[in-house]
Amino acid sequence: MTLHSLINDHLEKLLPPSEGPHAPLFEAARYSLLLPGKRLRPQLLLQVLEAYGIPVEEGLDAAAALEMIHTYSLIHDDLPCMDDDDLRRGKPSLHKVYDEGQAVLAGDFLLTYAFEVLAKSSAPREVITIFARAAGGHGMIGGQVIDLLSEGKEIDWDTLKQMYLGKTAALFSAALEAGAVIAGASLEDQAALKEAGDYYGIAFQIRDDILDETGTEEAMGKPVGSDTANRKATALTLFGRARAGALAQTFMDEAISILPEGVSI
Amino acid sequence: MTLHSLINDHLEKLLPPSEGPHAPLFEAARYSLLLPGKRLRPQLLLQVLEAYGIPVEEGLDAAAALEMIHTYSLIHDDLPCMDDDDLRRGKPSLHKVYDEGQAVLAGDFLLTYAFEVLAKSSAPREVITIFARAAGGHGMIGGQVIDLLSEGKEIDWDTLKQMYLGKTAALFSAALEAGAVIAGASLEDQAALKEAGDYYGIAFQIRDDILDETGTEEAMGKPVGSDTANRKATALTLFGRARAGALAQTFMDEAISILPEGVSI
Repeated sequence: MTLHSLINDHLEKLLPPSEGPHAPLFEAARYSLLLPGKRLRPQLLLQVLEAYGIPVEEGLDAAAALEMIHTYSLIHDDLPCMDDDDLRRGKPSLHKVYDEGQAVLAGDFLLTYAFEVLAKSSAPREVITIFARAAGGHGMIGGQVIDLLSEGKEIDWDTLKQMYLGKTAALFSAALEAGAVIAGASLEDQAALKEAGDYYGIAFQIRDDILDETGTEEAMGKPVGSDTANRKATALTLFGRARAGALAQTFMDEAISILPEGVSI
Repeated sequence: MTLHSLINDHLEKLLPPSEGPHAPLFEAARYSLLLPGKRLRPQLLLQVLEAYGIPVEEGLDAAAALEMIHTYSLIHDDLPCMDDDDLRRGKPSLHKVYDEGQAVLAGDFLLTYAFEVLAKSSAPREVITIFARAAGGHGMIGGQVIDLLSEGKEIDWDTLKQMYLGKTAALFSAALEAGAVIAGASLEDQAALKEAGDYYGIAFQIRDDILDETGTEEAMGKPVGSDTANRKATALTLFGRARAGALAQTFMDEAISILPEGVSI
């Protein structure tokens, strides 16, 4: 069974059944969570366990919680008062299928449920701290605030990098660090994996920016050209395609170079 | 120092300083969190510690986390796509001061930060589970979903009670149960306090419904008559004022009757 299938099965298993008076909430959460996604973040976490010879089952709850946090962020990010995107993972955004209020609540539910799953899991308590910090005001939400406040403004690479570190890299970094903590890796390895996640995340976001301009809606599963439409500064608008691509490669090389021996991402 | 001041001081201390590129996020969170509130939920938690002779300092992080969760729920509940309320705790709602996107993110931040504070606290891990469950799909968010789906519909007392149990009672119940867990109380006392919180919460919500119709905006710190305007079923619309008042008293008496000896709420 691939890691991808393991993660999907576990997400399916964890979701409360859609019954009773709360059924529409769980249906909405299920809609977003089970859309075809790449499951990159949970896979990274489980790959670290594999590299240390730890059964992936020991990280499944944490991996699923991370995907719930990622999915909640997409639901809220697509809202009309945020990026106002109508398409996600090739399907209508949640607030287009249900209404906005329900989309807000479904996102709130997935974030809250992620912490319930984590608290009840066998993962060390430190993993809860790692995820909360990565998803928080100096992590993912912090990046989205910079994003929201930067719309229509010129920003420099330092600010953009800080946005990428929060919006995107924080969860990649948390995936690798949490994997190391669950695997009982040395503090040195934990720190190296955390840092590698930051570089990997920046490279990932730059490539996503490039695809936003050059990819097709079909391949991306979301509207393309939306950065331009929202007058957003990206690595592409700052550097042009060739230099942005080279920059992504530099960050990816840096990530790989500092990985502990035996770990590949 | 009163419990109220202790809680306010601790909230102030925990909030990240409003500096750097994320400053507007932390300012927005601070605005909502530090509006004059009664701090009922965190006070209940600390009162349980006092009853068991445990220094309240041991519960301050958990108490503050609970108030953060409560405040996030108010911010999201006031959004235009939810209850669309312009006034909260006597001041403009967060989305009227900042914009909607920032209000969504400030709410997300307070919820996430509550779990970071909890994870790093000395509170038993079980308290994280208690709070996540109380704030989740079968708790507070579940109650809000019933609320959202019931607008303009006739609902019976069973459904309304389930809404109250989720929307309001879940956090009261979590406050008392968490207090018992932190105090190291017996499982029997934990269960009794959890149940007392449910009754207390229902009584509180019925009285809030009555005040919504009969109080003044000045005394309530939020618009009155909004339930009627939103065509919401409440205990008042179902039973009338006198019977609703009596029902609240019945639930309050029930709560008090099952409190472990020495505990008062």
